[in-house]
Amino acid sequence: MATIAFIGLGHMGGPMAINLVKAGHKVHAFDLVDELVQQVVAEGAHPAADAVDAVTDAEFVISMLPAGKHVEALYVTGDRPLFDVVKKSALIIDSSTIDAATAQRVTAIAAERGLNFIDAPVSGGVGGAIAGMLAFMVGADDAQFAQAKPILECMGRNILHAGGHGAGQIAKACNNLLLGVLMTGTCEALNLGVKNGLAPAVLSEIMKKSSGNNWALQLYNPYPGVMEHVPASKEYQGGFMVDLMFKDLGLAMELSQQSASPVPMGSAARALFSLHKAKGNGTLDFSSVMRLYQDQ
Amino acid sequence: MATIAFIGLGHMGGPMAINLVKAGHKVHAFDLVDELVQQVVAEGAHPAADAVDAVTDAEFVISMLPAGKHVEALYVTGDRPLFDVVKKSALIIDSSTIDAATAQRVTAIAAERGLNFIDAPVSGGVGGAIAGMLAFMVGADDAQFAQAKPILECMGRNILHAGGHGAGQIAKACNNLLLGVLMTGTCEALNLGVKNGLAPAVLSEIMKKSSGNNWALQLYNPYPGVMEHVPASKEYQGGFMVDLMFKDLGLAMELSQQSASPVPMGSAARALFSLHKAKGNGTLDFSSVMRLYQDQ
Amino acid sequence: MATIAFIGLGHMGGPMAINLVKAGHKVHAFDLVDELVQQVVAEGAHPAADAVDAVTDAEFVISMLPAGKHVEALYVTGDRPLFDVVKKSALIIDSSTIDAATAQRVTAIAAERGLNFIDAPVSGGVGGAIAGMLAFMVGADDAQFAQAKPILECMGRNILHAGGHGAGQIAKACNNLLLGVLMTGTCEALNLGVKNGLAPAVLSEIMKKSSGNNWALQLYNPYPGVMEHVPASKEYQGGFMVDLMFKDLGLAMELSQQSASPVPMGSAARALFSLHKAKGNGTLDFSSVMRLYQDQ
Amino acid sequence: MATIAFIGLGHMGGPMAINLVKAGHKVHAFDLVDELVQQVVAEGAHPAADAVDAVTDAEFVISMLPAGKHVEALYVTGDRPLFDVVKKSALIIDSSTIDAATAQRVTAIAAERGLNFIDAPVSGGVGGAIAGMLAFMVGADDAQFAQAKPILECMGRNILHAGGHGAGQIAKACNNLLLGVLMTGTCEALNLGVKNGLAPAVLSEIMKKSSGNNWALQLYNPYPGVMEHVPASKEYQGGFMVDLMFKDLGLAMELSQQSASPVPMGSAARALFSLHKAKGNGTLDFSSVMRLYQDQ
Repeated sequence: MATIAFIGLGHMGGPMAINLVKAGHKVHAFDLVDELVQQVVAEGAHPAADAVDAVTDAEFVISMLPAGKHVEALYVTGDRPLFDVVKKSALIIDSSTIDAATAQRVTAIAAERGLNFIDAPVSGGVGGAIAGMLAFMVGADDAQFAQAKPILECMGRNILHAGGHGAGQIAKACNNLLLGVLMTGTCEALNLGVKNGLAPAVLSEIMKKSSGNNWALQLYNPYPGVMEHVPASKEYQGGFMVDLMFKDLGLAMELSQQSASPVPMGSAARALFSLHKAKGNGTLDFSSVMRLYQDQ
Repeated sequence: MATIAFIGLGHMGGPMAINLVKAGHKVHAFDLVDELVQQVVAEGAHPAADAVDAVTDAEFVISMLPAGKHVEALYVTGDRPLFDVVKKSALIIDSSTIDAATAQRVTAIAAERGLNFIDAPVSGGVGGAIAGMLAFMVGADDAQFAQAKPILECMGRNILHAGGHGAGQIAKACNNLLLGVLMTGTCEALNLGVKNGLAPAVLSEIMKKSSGNNWALQLYNPYPGVMEHVPASKEYQGGFMVDLMFKDLGLAMELSQQSASPVPMGSAARALFSLHKAKGNGTLDFSSVMRLYQDQ
Repeated sequence: MATIAFIGLGHMGGPMAINLVKAGHKVHAFDLVDELVQQVVAEGAHPAADAVDAVTDAEFVISMLPAGKHVEALYVTGDRPLFDVVKKSALIIDSSTIDAATAQRVTAIAAERGLNFIDAPVSGGVGGAIAGMLAFMVGADDAQFAQAKPILECMGRNILHAGGHGAGQIAKACNNLLLGVLMTGTCEALNLGVKNGLAPAVLSEIMKKSSGNNWALQLYNPYPGVMEHVPASKEYQGGFMVDLMFKDLGLAMELSQQSASPVPMGSAARALFSLHKAKGNGTLDFSSVMRLYQDQ
Repeated sequence: MATIAFIGLGHMGGPMAINLVKAGHKVHAFDLVDELVQQVVAEGAHPAADAVDAVTDAEFVISMLPAGKHVEALYVTGDRPLFDVVKKSALIIDSSTIDAATAQRVTAIAAERGLNFIDAPVSGGVGGAIAGMLAFMVGADDAQFAQAKPILECMGRNILHAGGHGAGQIAKACNNLLLGVLMTGTCEALNLGVKNGLAPAVLSEIMKKSSGNNWALQLYNPYPGVMEHVPASKEYQGGFMVDLMFKDLGLAMELSQQSASPVPMGSAARALFSLHKAKGNGTLDFSSVMRLYQDQ
């Protein structure tokens, strides 16, 4: 049983914290929104008055925040930075999806101060968070990864060691760039076939058995009615929002710019999600980009 | 045992004809290049003096030609069009990958003349042709599909009924457009990760277990050394040529133009293969587009 | 005064024929739609019973048709091909915008038969046709160009010798590919500025005085209200239709495919016009692609 | 005669400072590289020991630095921030090309402290800087613009008021995004024509007289030999480096991400410059992207 501070209890962080409680850990939970704290307290977590209070005795600190600036403020530049109060022996796990540059900057500061800070962004969405089926992409040294693994396994199924510090954020950016490409490419191939008379379910099945096979065809078909229970069959409600895909593709663009890496396909995908978002579709599931292709 | 005429004995057609022989069929083989005829005759096929000779007694006619103009000339507009000599009861199976417009035009002429002509392009490459593991995407009515299936099963594993006449070519165009997108997207995600310090094998494994999963990561990793036996680990020799991917993406562009279907991602992929081809890489395997991304 | 046959009297052909009449030429006019014939007859042209009737005595034959297949049918493959009846001394000028491959095929047939056939597609739109201010891009040998020039000058201002046969169509394809790129790029730069608080007229003026200067900013600003009398200030009515820009970009794609020329930017532009067209905007002016970028 | 501090004396800043000297102003010059200071001192500027020394008595402060982080450090976050020492009555003009977000943040801090800080990035390259022919895109209120204008006119020809604070950087980002699109589009149209047999000079002339007309065709033709004195006719030496175009397109991507503005064409252009840069061409003039298109 470990004592764990959990900061950031939103759509993802809330269920993740609850899964830690269910696994028997002592979880000190904090969020700026008190209502979110109460939700996890109702499941057995301990409420913390503030972030400092949450981490004081923690062996593990887990944060789940929207962007790099929030992470940097929490640990380094805010009014009461956690790096000033956390125990030297604690392992700090940032599961936020943030830009790799900030992750590496915060990691370097932690290292200077003798603290253990690793990046472990997740993939799998709200459904995966609730079911404890997330994938974690971890940037850490071997000892830190070994220490983090049993804790992360309470929240996820695939705990993947991407490399040294920052590598988790980089792997996440690469994966989600590719996801953006797969999803738009799949939408466009399906639309091309349907406009030429093919049945979407038949074409999906053919491509799944051929070299067009990919995650979207297997688990997340974007054409309404082909697959049950996916957002496409629920008016694109739930799932992974267009706004978040647009954010993640923006992080990939930053990474490509800093490292001078060409990303023509990811750039084209970002442009398509951007055109789709401009028409008011930011809160729909990202597979709704199907509609951008379709005739009015 | 069926009597089968096989026209077009190149890299794909040759091994396909041989697999029909091995299955016990009587195969009358013809190609403009006599050497190619001799190769299949050595395996048990019967040489035909010309295409007309090959088809005269055939119950099945199979053609495997480079482009729509060759198919149209062979059956309709050439000096001795096969539609004039083939038996009314024969089933004509065109396995060439050609533009859907020509396929539909030739099909319509066949129908007017009471002939059975279906489109059945393949996926799976030279390796698949040799191993008898091709996928066939068939455009035919139900009776024709049922008739063709046992013959096609001698050459392939997945015999997929895409829809009515022309649907096979349309499904092939959609699949290969998506394949072009998957491959370029995968190359670009891998290059982005590697330039930022990740190991290509580790990143490949992470994306394969996440939402970036696709055919290229599973079976055809484009990064040298990640996967054995794929072209990337053999200096991009063998496999499916850049020239052929460029041709297929051109067919998808035609289809998108005729049907006014937007294909931004396929268009971007075509542009990348085109830039790669311009530097003299047309005869390498298409996964060599990896090199377009990499630093000199 | 020359005797001129004019075939194809649509939005472009009609006013072009009338300008020839006004310049004093004897014009035998034909179109499949009799009403269009009557409109130019009202301005002084002579009605022809059919295309053969129109060309019989003509020194010049001018055609203005929608696509390559119409041109090929008219001159070569139709029921009564004009190449069978036109005078050997006549100069045949095809001003249709068609694919370069067809232009070159028809030209070759003309040459075999000792006929003078040149390609001279136009730029400048309906307004330019009415005002006699078209640009002609001419593919012809020097003698043919010299012979055509005074006739073309009755209809246009810039008579440009692009090169040998087919070169007019190639130049037109290159120009309109570039135009598609300029227009989408200009829309996107303006939208980016406006969304960040700049006034569209101010930003237009700045870019016009800087390295962003181009035809769209000078003569055809796509942002409503910046420039009077352009389609953008008339709800995108009139001008050059999205459908035609989409057609022309399709011709450029064909040319790029046949010559293995990379056209990433033109491909991206085609994709944008295609997305715009899919939402029912095909008959608006092409500068309406501005709306694709804008927030709902 | 004004007393002017000039910070940053590189390829652009050096000649700009010299033009101020030539106009009769008293210029206190500083750069971290002493050799650069000596070059402008040789033309009549006064050397400053450091940035603080340069600005102490200045009525105008002009900075010309590589990126946002340098500007922020100089004025706000560095060891001896200039905002602490500059006179309240001074007008601070930042002519660096930086991200709009930093420009707006620094401007806000200046405003809080009662200082006059405006953004005035330039266009026109090293040649324009030497000749005093730059374009300035100015973000400032009306009074500040009026005050800056006579000073800027010593260094440039077009002094353009883009709007309020930050508007200069935004206009610059929009313009250079469009420039990247124009240049790649022009290269691609020329390559398409040349591969199909047209002479590059003839095609350039035709498009310049048609709707493909743009800055690149007018002043900066990317095809070797068409225009004298441009980088294309000097092995792409001199001019505006690929590295800088890549940087500027990165700034435009950031702006598009923050404002959720779709930039498909600019994104495609960035991808092309990125592919070109990856092959070792970063220090060539940006019109060398012509070579990316050409056959080996």
